[in-house]
Amino acid sequence: MNEAAITLDGWYVLHDFRSMDWASWKLVDEAERQEAIEEFQAYLANLNEADVAKTGAHAFYTIVGQKADFMLMTLRETMDELQEIEAAFNKLKIADFTIPAYSYVSVVELSNYLAGESNEDPYQNPHVRSRLYPELPRAQYVCFYPMDKRRQGNDNWYMLGMDERKGLMRSHGMIGRGYAGKVKQIISGSIGFDDHEWGVTLFADDVLQFKKLVYEMRFDEVSARYGEFGSFFVGNIATDEKLVKFLTV
Amino acid sequence: MNEAAITLDGWYVLHDFRSMDWASWKLVDEAERQEAIEEFQAYLANLNEADVAKTGAHAFYTIVGQKADFMLMTLRETMDELQEIEAAFNKLKIADFTIPAYSYVSVVELSNYLAGESNEDPYQNPHVRSRLYPELPRAQYVCFYPMDKRRQGNDNWYMLGMDERKGLMRSHGMIGRGYAGKVKQIISGSIGFDDHEWGVTLFADDVLQFKKLVYEMRFDEVSARYGEFGSFFVGNIATDEKLVKFLTV
Amino acid sequence: MNEAAITLDGWYVLHDFRSMDWASWKLVDEAERQEAIEEFQAYLANLNEADVAKTGAHAFYTIVGQKADFMLMTLRETMDELQEIEAAFNKLKIADFTIPAYSYVSVVELSNYLAGESNEDPYQNPHVRSRLYPELPRAQYVCFYPMDKRRQGNDNWYMLGMDERKGLMRSHGMIGRGYAGKVKQIISGSIGFDDHEWGVTLFADDVLQFKKLVYEMRFDEVSARYGEFGSFFVGNIATDEKLVKFLTV
Amino acid sequence: MNEAAITLDGWYVLHDFRSMDWASWKLVDEAERQEAIEEFQAYLANLNEADVAKTGAHAFYTIVGQKADFMLMTLRETMDELQEIEAAFNKLKIADFTIPAYSYVSVVELSNYLAGESNEDPYQNPHVRSRLYPELPRAQYVCFYPMDKRRQGNDNWYMLGMDERKGLMRSHGMIGRGYAGKVKQIISGSIGFDDHEWGVTLFADDVLQFKKLVYEMRFDEVSARYGEFGSFFVGNIATDEKLVKFLTV
Amino acid sequence: MNEAAITLDGWYVLHDFRSMDWASWKLVDEAERQEAIEEFQAYLANLNEADVAKTGAHAFYTIVGQKADFMLMTLRETMDELQEIEAAFNKLKIADFTIPAYSYVSVVELSNYLAGESNEDPYQNPHVRSRLYPELPRAQYVCFYPMDKRRQGNDNWYMLGMDERKGLMRSHGMIGRGYAGKVKQIISGSIGFDDHEWGVTLFADDVLQFKKLVYEMRFDEVSARYGEFGSFFVGNIATDEKLVKFLTV
Repeated sequence: MNEAAITLDGWYVLHDFRSMDWASWKLVDEAERQEAIEEFQAYLANLNEADVAKTGAHAFYTIVGQKADFMLMTLRETMDELQEIEAAFNKLKIADFTIPAYSYVSVVELSNYLAGESNEDPYQNPHVRSRLYPELPRAQYVCFYPMDKRRQGNDNWYMLGMDERKGLMRSHGMIGRGYAGKVKQIISGSIGFDDHEWGVTLFADDVLQFKKLVYEMRFDEVSARYGEFGSFFVGNIATDEKLVKFLTV
Repeated sequence: MNEAAITLDGWYVLHDFRSMDWASWKLVDEAERQEAIEEFQAYLANLNEADVAKTGAHAFYTIVGQKADFMLMTLRETMDELQEIEAAFNKLKIADFTIPAYSYVSVVELSNYLAGESNEDPYQNPHVRSRLYPELPRAQYVCFYPMDKRRQGNDNWYMLGMDERKGLMRSHGMIGRGYAGKVKQIISGSIGFDDHEWGVTLFADDVLQFKKLVYEMRFDEVSARYGEFGSFFVGNIATDEKLVKFLTV
Repeated sequence: MNEAAITLDGWYVLHDFRSMDWASWKLVDEAERQEAIEEFQAYLANLNEADVAKTGAHAFYTIVGQKADFMLMTLRETMDELQEIEAAFNKLKIADFTIPAYSYVSVVELSNYLAGESNEDPYQNPHVRSRLYPELPRAQYVCFYPMDKRRQGNDNWYMLGMDERKGLMRSHGMIGRGYAGKVKQIISGSIGFDDHEWGVTLFADDVLQFKKLVYEMRFDEVSARYGEFGSFFVGNIATDEKLVKFLTV
Repeated sequence: MNEAAITLDGWYVLHDFRSMDWASWKLVDEAERQEAIEEFQAYLANLNEADVAKTGAHAFYTIVGQKADFMLMTLRETMDELQEIEAAFNKLKIADFTIPAYSYVSVVELSNYLAGESNEDPYQNPHVRSRLYPELPRAQYVCFYPMDKRRQGNDNWYMLGMDERKGLMRSHGMIGRGYAGKVKQIISGSIGFDDHEWGVTLFADDVLQFKKLVYEMRFDEVSARYGEFGSFFVGNIATDEKLVKFLTV
Repeated sequence: MNEAAITLDGWYVLHDFRSMDWASWKLVDEAERQEAIEEFQAYLANLNEADVAKTGAHAFYTIVGQKADFMLMTLRETMDELQEIEAAFNKLKIADFTIPAYSYVSVVELSNYLAGESNEDPYQNPHVRSRLYPELPRAQYVCFYPMDKRRQGNDNWYMLGMDERKGLMRSHGMIGRGYAGKVKQIISGSIGFDDHEWGVTLFADDVLQFKKLVYEMRFDEVSARYGEFGSFFVGNIATDEKLVKFLTV
């Protein structure tokens, strides 16, 4: 029997993608739209309190192309809070003018592939904690995609031994490290929670770095032979000011 | 010719996932919403009478993410009762504000892979009966996913001999047993009833155990080589009180 | 070149699955609903005249789960009649409250895999005729699924020689025969007519027999290596009385 | 490098499948429906002028099952005319009561697999011209499906040498020839135009011949190893009289 | 480890496909339609200013078949501008009568497979610049499709060495060069931005050249063994005059 990877698990994560129903939104009178925008801004400000208190985090971006109009990503200590945040959004006025586009449920994850040996409780390690309970940067761009490790014929990740997986992940991690300072990467595990095995969220101030990173990794055996990818979403940060401009019709 | 697995079959199961049409629900006046909620509560209370009488069981959870807003799982002695329960739901006022999201039809199943030899009628064995006609726990979290055994090239479960399948299932079952007391698992067969071969419903008070269990199993040959998985749904228990809060807009 | 299987072809078959738009149906006033139900009942009674005259057959079942609310299966001597039956349904009042869910176009088929040698015209053989132009039983339950024979790598049914296919089909047929008296099976060919190669319709008074039959067959090489399955639908017979109850809101 | 097949290309083809929105159509008053039908008939009569002048062709059939209610197939000298025909349909009154169901864009194609050697310009050959610019028969039934040649592992059509492809196509063509006088076949190429590589349109007065032809071909290596098939549509001819009957509610 | 291909990246690209909601569009009164058309024309004229200033480019085509009614392709220096262009379109009156059909986000890309050795900064090379920041021709026809390089069993592009990939791409490029003057090709990379790895946009005055080019390439090993293709869209140029005609009902 194979040795399963061991994970460290941090905050639960909900990625919530919505499209605007622009035609309906335009039908509403100006004052009502204004009220809906302000209510939405208050909702976002409230979410941000967790960022400040470091009891959670969130990111809010407009999405390019027809897959969605915006993405709200929230991280919290419990799955229950994610449910409440989703329900609260649905009860906002603005929600009546949005159409569900895609969502993803996961939990921030670190695997033991890259871990050194230690007798310490990793959950007490400040470096580990900063990755399990991450502050989300206010970067200009975001990229999100879900992925699986392939189990197909001779390309079956889960039939490889632990040492082989470790070796492969090490070289894969080296590529990521080459983008340090350019791309911040959050890996969240979703086995048992959603349709793929992991979600990957990337943040960068230069959107081209997403393409460079994912393309370079694709030539690495971990992606080349074992990576299966879902939909890719790319977006621009939605500051308060940009949100108002976006919703003004 | 291969020897087919023999199954013991218990209660029929319907998993019924629905999304709320929040925009329409908000348009209804307060009194009408109140009435619809009370009618829904009475419907759920009525379902629960079978749980009490041990002639059936049900579970009711809100679902995280956009795949659905809630899931009603019901177990009954006949397929006819499932149909009636589904039809009765559709005739509720609340149903007019829901959108069908996903459903699954199956029957609680035990296979003979793990059975010892015995001359007794297993349907008279109290331990077996408690698994075929299970009480559903009021656990904090639920996880549901449908699955198949793979039939692809050299990874064809149905071409393996009975002994090989038995051996594989035994080691697979050992993993499950390691989660005893943490995760309660209901396996229901759906060959001939729905699009996958089995439905798996997991209950736990710690939602992270779903991920740990399913991930650990994925490295076991039964899942690694032979498992094909459908959509995963995860949710929080919807007590009467939480249901009211959920539906209050 | 391979020797193609020869088929005998009987009545054309339309499986028409519909979902109810319950919310709209409830909006209609009682008298109008009553009128729509009566018109629908007259339509079904009219269909039944062909059953009585043995110039066709039909079956009408409610479907469990969200895939559909009911299925109307009709068999006729010509494709033109199927079109007319479908068009006539669409012109009924009740049709305005249904949503197309799935349909399947095929023709009752017997293959020569299991045929003995004979100089007779099989179309004159009463036993053959009773299978090509079948009376449909008023069984308690129905199961429908479309399927293909696989053409994938080394598992390519259509590249096997006639003798090998014959041998495989014979052992497959033996399993079916074990369910004689429990499950009535109608095979209809749909190559050139619809998206899969065959439709399988099963009738039984014990719904569990569908699962037992399909599961046992799955371990047989014909299914294990060569079967590809579409969606499965399972339903309860909709007698006149049950239809009225079903549609009463 | 492989030698690519050379094609002769004739008229551009649009297959346009539509479903009726019967509920809305019934809501319109009788006179308005009558007007819409007459306008539609005039549109079809106008299309037919190209058939008469042999500057194009069209076929109009009702489709059996829920995939579509009717199919309008038009052949013209330029892609621009297809666009205009489609736009003109969308501007008809009847179009407001239809829902787009499927469409296919292609060009009538003859490949050089079956061609003899010749120094003549094939576009001047009357036999070739009659196939590139075909008159469409007013046969009782139509069958349409899109298809690809497989590129998968060892079954990769595009990696075969020209001679091997030629040999395979010759035997494939022989099957088709066995249906001469029973089935008229139009092959149109769609590489670069639509999602599959070819569209196949069959016409026959005996609908069973579609099934016999496609089934027999499936045992031939070209289909068995290299054929990938999309959706199949089958329909009855919609004469002027039958169209009126079809649309009368 | 494999050597990843290096890319040069130019303008960001958004392909935005929309379908008209013709029935709603007809309901609007003539003056309002006229106003919406003029506003749309002003929007397009505004986009064209970037073409003139060579700070971007755009192309506007009607699409044949039901996949979409028109495609607006825009190229800009930043992802932010694409977002703004998309948002501005959604705020137009005409947008209320369109339905999102498909979109694609990418960046104009040149790979180093075909590059010679050089010490110069390629971004300063005028020939390279004209390809990274291309003027879009006002050709009669457009073709768009997304694609991937296959990673499947023995056909895994990303596991090939750089030299092998270079050799294959060279022969592939030769085919493209044979169409110089007939087909203008824009390759844009979308790894990390959208669901496929590349978008291919072709322009030609003879629509048949799209089919000839893509078909010829399919016999080349790069496509035959390693190409995976998404949906194909084909369309006619929408000049100002043709747009007015198209939208006049």
